[in-house]
Amino acid sequence: MIKVGIAGVTGYTGIELVKLISNHPKTKLCSVSSNSYKGKALTEVFPSMRGFETLICEDLDGPPLSGKLDVIFLALPHKISMQHVPGLLGNHIKVIDLSADFRFSDASAYESAYQEHTAKHLLKKSVYGLSEIYRDKIKAAKLIGNPGCYPTSILLPLIPLLKENLIQPSGIISDSKSGVSGAGRSLSLSSHFCEVNESFGPYKIGNHRHTPEIDEILSIQSGQKISITFVPHLLPITRGMLSTIYVQAKEHTTESRIREVYAAYYEKEPFIRILQKNAFPAISHVKGTNACDIGLHFCEETHQIILVSAIDNLLKGAAGQAVQNMNIMFGLKEDLGLNSVQVPL
Amino acid sequence: MIKVGIAGVTGYTGIELVKLISNHPKTKLCSVSSNSYKGKALTEVFPSMRGFETLICEDLDGPPLSGKLDVIFLALPHKISMQHVPGLLGNHIKVIDLSADFRFSDASAYESAYQEHTAKHLLKKSVYGLSEIYRDKIKAAKLIGNPGCYPTSILLPLIPLLKENLIQPSGIISDSKSGVSGAGRSLSLSSHFCEVNESFGPYKIGNHRHTPEIDEILSIQSGQKISITFVPHLLPITRGMLSTIYVQAKEHTTESRIREVYAAYYEKEPFIRILQKNAFPAISHVKGTNACDIGLHFCEETHQIILVSAIDNLLKGAAGQAVQNMNIMFGLKEDLGLNSVQVPL
Amino acid sequence: MIKVGIAGVTGYTGIELVKLISNHPKTKLCSVSSNSYKGKALTEVFPSMRGFETLICEDLDGPPLSGKLDVIFLALPHKISMQHVPGLLGNHIKVIDLSADFRFSDASAYESAYQEHTAKHLLKKSVYGLSEIYRDKIKAAKLIGNPGCYPTSILLPLIPLLKENLIQPSGIISDSKSGVSGAGRSLSLSSHFCEVNESFGPYKIGNHRHTPEIDEILSIQSGQKISITFVPHLLPITRGMLSTIYVQAKEHTTESRIREVYAAYYEKEPFIRILQKNAFPAISHVKGTNACDIGLHFCEETHQIILVSAIDNLLKGAAGQAVQNMNIMFGLKEDLGLNSVQVPL
Amino acid sequence: MIKVGIAGVTGYTGIELVKLISNHPKTKLCSVSSNSYKGKALTEVFPSMRGFETLICEDLDGPPLSGKLDVIFLALPHKISMQHVPGLLGNHIKVIDLSADFRFSDASAYESAYQEHTAKHLLKKSVYGLSEIYRDKIKAAKLIGNPGCYPTSILLPLIPLLKENLIQPSGIISDSKSGVSGAGRSLSLSSHFCEVNESFGPYKIGNHRHTPEIDEILSIQSGQKISITFVPHLLPITRGMLSTIYVQAKEHTTESRIREVYAAYYEKEPFIRILQKNAFPAISHVKGTNACDIGLHFCEETHQIILVSAIDNLLKGAAGQAVQNMNIMFGLKEDLGLNSVQVPL
Repeated sequence: MIKVGIAGVTGYTGIELVKLISNHPKTKLCSVSSNSYKGKALTEVFPSMRGFETLICEDLDGPPLSGKLDVIFLALPHKISMQHVPGLLGNHIKVIDLSADFRFSDASAYESAYQEHTAKHLLKKSVYGLSEIYRDKIKAAKLIGNPGCYPTSILLPLIPLLKENLIQPSGIISDSKSGVSGAGRSLSLSSHFCEVNESFGPYKIGNHRHTPEIDEILSIQSGQKISITFVPHLLPITRGMLSTIYVQAKEHTTESRIREVYAAYYEKEPFIRILQKNAFPAISHVKGTNACDIGLHFCEETHQIILVSAIDNLLKGAAGQAVQNMNIMFGLKEDLGLNSVQVPL
Repeated sequence: MIKVGIAGVTGYTGIELVKLISNHPKTKLCSVSSNSYKGKALTEVFPSMRGFETLICEDLDGPPLSGKLDVIFLALPHKISMQHVPGLLGNHIKVIDLSADFRFSDASAYESAYQEHTAKHLLKKSVYGLSEIYRDKIKAAKLIGNPGCYPTSILLPLIPLLKENLIQPSGIISDSKSGVSGAGRSLSLSSHFCEVNESFGPYKIGNHRHTPEIDEILSIQSGQKISITFVPHLLPITRGMLSTIYVQAKEHTTESRIREVYAAYYEKEPFIRILQKNAFPAISHVKGTNACDIGLHFCEETHQIILVSAIDNLLKGAAGQAVQNMNIMFGLKEDLGLNSVQVPL
Repeated sequence: MIKVGIAGVTGYTGIELVKLISNHPKTKLCSVSSNSYKGKALTEVFPSMRGFETLICEDLDGPPLSGKLDVIFLALPHKISMQHVPGLLGNHIKVIDLSADFRFSDASAYESAYQEHTAKHLLKKSVYGLSEIYRDKIKAAKLIGNPGCYPTSILLPLIPLLKENLIQPSGIISDSKSGVSGAGRSLSLSSHFCEVNESFGPYKIGNHRHTPEIDEILSIQSGQKISITFVPHLLPITRGMLSTIYVQAKEHTTESRIREVYAAYYEKEPFIRILQKNAFPAISHVKGTNACDIGLHFCEETHQIILVSAIDNLLKGAAGQAVQNMNIMFGLKEDLGLNSVQVPL
Repeated sequence: MIKVGIAGVTGYTGIELVKLISNHPKTKLCSVSSNSYKGKALTEVFPSMRGFETLICEDLDGPPLSGKLDVIFLALPHKISMQHVPGLLGNHIKVIDLSADFRFSDASAYESAYQEHTAKHLLKKSVYGLSEIYRDKIKAAKLIGNPGCYPTSILLPLIPLLKENLIQPSGIISDSKSGVSGAGRSLSLSSHFCEVNESFGPYKIGNHRHTPEIDEILSIQSGQKISITFVPHLLPITRGMLSTIYVQAKEHTTESRIREVYAAYYEKEPFIRILQKNAFPAISHVKGTNACDIGLHFCEETHQIILVSAIDNLLKGAAGQAVQNMNIMFGLKEDLGLNSVQVPL
């Protein structure tokens, strides 16, 4: 059994990880930490999480975890993660970091969007954990920068089309919509029930921190500088994310060619499903799963392609992909612990 | 007092009209009809609508309304409207039709999106009821084709920029999101609570009937053939609509020029509000009002403009704009009965 | 015009008062205060509240309001209200206090549920603002303790039956359910969207502060000590409240007698509606109105009565009843500014 | 592997059964039927149900299932179930019926609440599937009448207290609240999103069909005629159910005695959790699980007991308890396939 730790266990991503690791046939949850609920049992903090009456939230700055863990998931705020990673790696614990701290290979891109990076030397070792695209590197990695939820929903449909030269690299637009759990469990007027309920709107137009993350990966993958237009919106639902992406096809591109390329990249992927013509994703089709559904509309006349992708922001957009990466790192079947059947409600 | 009738009174637009006409200082509600609830009092059908215990839903095919009404609002399904309009006009009753039947000046555009038009001769007389844009024609009109909700949210931000030659006429994209009341009160699996709640997704990509309506008006207004990309999505909320619109500025366009043009067109409009830099609309900011809020992001580098507009689909998107049009037709102050203060919840 | 001030204007009750006072034909909003948003325009704080671009939130501890106001609504937290009331009354400003500070005639009952009362001498002058029951006293009052939302929903159906000796005074149970706006706009994990949404449950069983308020009024009205069982629950909706009340009829009581008594008390009341047999209230039937709907089921066999009452917690349960009380205090028609037609969505 | 069939697979209970049976380590889903979607693959009907692209919905009246199945779950409307059960039993297929048809031992009680019973002779053989209470009979049963959701939430907290003579058998009140999925997937105005959303109210006061079911079981269990007051309400959420139950303790009853009795009955039950003093259930604590949480408030003064129970109406209230019963019938560990960890959102 793989010995697993989870840091930042009392956030929404943290408990999602507890669920996945507990239901996983090859892992054992050995240690959890929480800054806000130190000393409390997890079931005390979340009465719905039954069976954890004796799993006590520890202090991450407590006694060293060396020897106790094979891998640790860090569901911590950015900046906090980078403080712990060097020590953990030094103790021979593999790290899957769900913050933004190790997603960038370019420290200056990170620093312009976030703050000073205090563990820059590790950026070269860290692997971007977009499982389907970076699988080979993930296998050998000791440190994973797990992708953001918005980037996951945008990169998966775009990368194959860009790499195979089917679409214009400029003018890409992603109109994205996320459930409230994406903003975490900390208190804010923008997560107050009465402010969110029965409303909807965009936020951070032109300056969301996920934009440089998306741009960096698209640029690396396509071999040219790409800069997309990204507009996030807040949906009055708890979980789920959907991106409607507008791109321009190249002259020679046809719908059947696009479908061929998607099939080549994703046909054997357990978590990616390319929908048939005229079928489009909905959040209820992926909620509770690690799946990414992708739908496609190609306009013959204008050569415009509309891509629609849907994921569960807490699963394929966070904890689910993190466990998928753990499976890859430890040589397990990739969908282990992630393939249970879900209903749409 | 203006004597008012409402046909199709037991739909969501119908009761919204009852509310507006009842709260209006210059109108008297004289007659309501409903196909589904003939003979029932309105309060019986909608217990929340108190004060209408004796307002009985009549049969629209009943005794002629001649002399009884000055104006009638038709909140009927398309195809049904066009059957009644000729008779109503013949009886010297002004008609504000909220179906699609009289929105098109081009009968073939209508027929390709809907069905055969049986009152084509009236299309020339009918005026498209986008109040701020067609005010002068509305003043003299006897028949109004009241705009669709999606078209209203898209046309109001776009028309000034197109007419003043500030944006490219091609490549316009509107990613639009609507509450469930837009689909009406009739039963459908796609309006079932459990199918909509906690979900979100696009529908009718590439073939929504509002696209030709939008294209026709934009083409007329700009003097050139325009064809936009329009993707509607269903929001799990009761009312409200938001469109995120992506357009390309012309070479010479600047943000201050855009703001000047908007000011020229809309500064004195009681229902249109152009938001300041970095402020964007949300559905809760317009819900319950006849307002259209418009926010704007201009990217200097790429010359892309992102416009965000929000309306209440049942008010500025239907019943509210219809009453605004009635005010114009009868020479009343345009915001009469439409200017009460609303809270965001 | 009556010159009106509102203190605590940026809470949910505060903005509801702004709406009502602004839409009221006989009042002028002259001053608003807010502790959290001093110096900001109301429209800046709530973009949906258009028309208040120059209404600046003042400091309640600022320059004296003497002469400027005829009446002030205090939408302040309890304890804060009692600090301001003596000064306001001294300046000849009538006070309608929406906190709990002046609801009790018995200071010790207040102090056991809340904290020390620092203006006890005013408790004798203050009138409990349950409009339909205390109308005569309200007419002459200078200080109103506006009822809590739960008490309003429970007292209105119970008082006539208790006073007319139709029900047992013991064993009364109210199973009550409230929307989230009842908890106010301040931040708390229990108002976080993801914690409330798609959930439901009771809270503060056995020790909610509204219980002594309900008990005091029922005891005064019935002339005997009454102590009810009150269980509040949190509904995942923004506004609205429904109480299902279980009482035991006295031997001689019949359904027709109950209906006679309700008719005698409430038939002419503009805001109270007794529903017909087999019809029951729903929150959507009263949302947005100052109404209280009451439904009734009488079991012949067991002599049990089930009463169901519904109100909008922010209107009849707070701001609406406060304005109703102002109308009474100033000799206006009681439903002035409160009688606009509303739709259920 | 146990060979399983599911009839009525395209309702909300049906797909929940598909999920449970597919995720269960000892069962194989061999056959599904649907009246509405005959010939379609399950994934076609529910895109979220991936992995069932070749599981075709059959006609229940098609070729005999004899030999193909060990057990069948009937998620059919009442009346339809009783038509199929005799044939299925004749083919040596065990039946777990989720309709009301085999819940009653007294045919006349069934017939007064539903309609004529056409398989009365089987009522004596059928076992009421309240797992924790009827476990011994379930072990040997060939036909299970799986309990209703409301009865499950009410019976589990009450039975121990009644059997141990701790509470008065008269005057029991259950104020119950259910999510919309309880009403099924068929179309009805009362399940229309806009009618349910942001509302709440009671329905069928005094004549809900679950009342006789509850009364029959309570009477059998306590050995005396019991008739409770049951008021169901509709919550604007998809899944979950909570009952707040008011009972009167007997003279000698104490809180510690109640807790002893609950411990004796339920301490070892995997799915029942008695909450500590001052802790109460919420729907989010049980959603997605087969659990029943029970909270308890005992008032020393009045000897009133308030019980609060919460279940997931589609799991412990339907499909989950049905699978629990299957586990019992086939000698499996009772929580097999039902014990995965869930998060509250």
